[in-house]
Amino acid sequence: MATIKDIASQLGLSVTTVSKGLSGASDVNEETRQKILNAALELGYVARRDQTASNAPKICIFVENMRYEHIEQFGYEIIVGFRLAAAERKWKVDILPISMNEKIDYIYDEFMRKNGYSGGFLLGFFLHSDFHVQLQKTVVPTVLLDNMINNRNVACVGVDNQQGIMRAVELLASLGHSTIAMMNGESISRVSQERYNGFKLGMSKCNLPVRKELIAFGNYTNLCAAPYVKGFVEGGATAIVCASDVIAHGVLTELAKLDLRVPQDISVVGFDDLPLAKYTVPPLTTIRQDRLSVGKSACIAMEQIMDGIAVSRLLLTPELIVRESTGPVR
Amino acid sequence: MATIKDIASQLGLSVTTVSKGLSGASDVNEETRQKILNAALELGYVARRDQTASNAPKICIFVENMRYEHIEQFGYEIIVGFRLAAAERKWKVDILPISMNEKIDYIYDEFMRKNGYSGGFLLGFFLHSDFHVQLQKTVVPTVLLDNMINNRNVACVGVDNQQGIMRAVELLASLGHSTIAMMNGESISRVSQERYNGFKLGMSKCNLPVRKELIAFGNYTNLCAAPYVKGFVEGGATAIVCASDVIAHGVLTELAKLDLRVPQDISVVGFDDLPLAKYTVPPLTTIRQDRLSVGKSACIAMEQIMDGIAVSRLLLTPELIVRESTGPVR
Repeated sequence: MATIKDIASQLGLSVTTVSKGLSGASDVNEETRQKILNAALELGYVARRDQTASNAPKICIFVENMRYEHIEQFGYEIIVGFRLAAAERKWKVDILPISMNEKIDYIYDEFMRKNGYSGGFLLGFFLHSDFHVQLQKTVVPTVLLDNMINNRNVACVGVDNQQGIMRAVELLASLGHSTIAMMNGESISRVSQERYNGFKLGMSKCNLPVRKELIAFGNYTNLCAAPYVKGFVEGGATAIVCASDVIAHGVLTELAKLDLRVPQDISVVGFDDLPLAKYTVPPLTTIRQDRLSVGKSACIAMEQIMDGIAVSRLLLTPELIVRESTGPVR
Repeated sequence: MATIKDIASQLGLSVTTVSKGLSGASDVNEETRQKILNAALELGYVARRDQTASNAPKICIFVENMRYEHIEQFGYEIIVGFRLAAAERKWKVDILPISMNEKIDYIYDEFMRKNGYSGGFLLGFFLHSDFHVQLQKTVVPTVLLDNMINNRNVACVGVDNQQGIMRAVELLASLGHSTIAMMNGESISRVSQERYNGFKLGMSKCNLPVRKELIAFGNYTNLCAAPYVKGFVEGGATAIVCASDVIAHGVLTELAKLDLRVPQDISVVGFDDLPLAKYTVPPLTTIRQDRLSVGKSACIAMEQIMDGIAVSRLLLTPELIVRESTGPVR
């Protein structure tokens, strides 16, 4: 294991030049940089993290609009995954549930510095406030779940929402469905937008038309479907793709009120694979988000930003879980 | 540092159940799983990698259609970055330049198994052959540069191409340009498609029309621009966004033949920030791909797949480098 010093003495260069060459600074010319990189490979250079128990990074997880106390809840495994990966790195982790009002009252970077946090992981935020502006300028390594900010210090993690909904549509098309509705969450949330894009791309890939009267935006609760399901059915929909399992649960309730059988009369697909998906009647076909892996990858993305690698997005492959709420078109 | 055994004895469960709970197997109920995860956090569980010098993973980097011997060439820093990150993990790395003909002759998974490779990193491939089908089914942890495959064992790395071109368009719009052309690479390559999407999104964000006669697909060489530049100029373009620095270099050559001054008469933007971008006349404004970081993140994505985290995409934030080839609209 060689250090920057070893490379410098081997090449007769200063430690500063070698350090600049390794980080790609523009004032080291290409020839020198190539010598430095080649020597790093030959000598077995390993970047040294200057980290002891006393200066181990301390991370703050901010949680808004999301429950995480119990395994049934969306946030639980994400936070456990992050904490497990952080423990492997000997990082300390605090969790701070936060309300919108408190949030607007302070400046993110100032809060982080005052409290000695080296990084932040933000869950469940709608970024329509001044917080969005703050994150575009933050110098603190920050990871967002399912959100995006154009800043080298901010990464987005989550499953690939677009790919997930595309797989749901492809499953339904393979079962003969051609009139497919979508019950989405809040239109202002980035997740909903990505899932809607996935719906349009999936329909287009299967040569199916997207009919506007069969698309609705509500919110991520089981009550949001009530005003729309009857209209979907009257519009001829033989399948409903939902942006979450909780929404799908509400759709199943509405379909039962209309005396429609799932999947014999109409198919339903959820998203998330929350524990409840196994217990609905019938059990839900859904797109699984491996939440433990999402949490772990948030920690890995944060470590990369701390190491100077400007991660923009780290997305996981969603998995289609076929249960009993989907069947051939009637 | 606790092991699976410690968690099992603390909870009075079998090692198998704990192991299944930690990996999220569906035959462990939620209540037990929550107990296992909470105990893992409390006891400080660290996943143990069963790795010694003799069983250190051996990785194969396949390179096609890409030069990498010298720092001036696109592939050099990507491969160095991968090898540096692999060295930190004590992984062995082989590099295999490959021609299309050889490629079609063997089966990927069989080749990897026979040669003892635990993972593959593929650079520069066009995935239009049967190779695409093979990768959709591979069980080998595989990372692709700038390509995408729907398979839990395959990840894509690269810079966020869409975001990069959007930033180029936004820069030009801020300089007053409204008639902007795009000189792209091969239309079959995923990179070109993403960069074209970025162009359309950027133009739309700036309320500028995309004119079909100002869009051309060529290839990633400095000769591809020759048939199109005159048409762009006659079509009124005051700026040309190029899909690579090498293409931009060809555009500069064509503009010089037409006696047009850059940036006084027309602006040009490249992509990549290859060393040549500093030496063109005038020096190129471009979108920087931090290739060392791309290589490192390929190694990190591969490690995640090996650890059971199904990375789909790991994209880096592109950086806009403003030099002298862009200026206010004339």
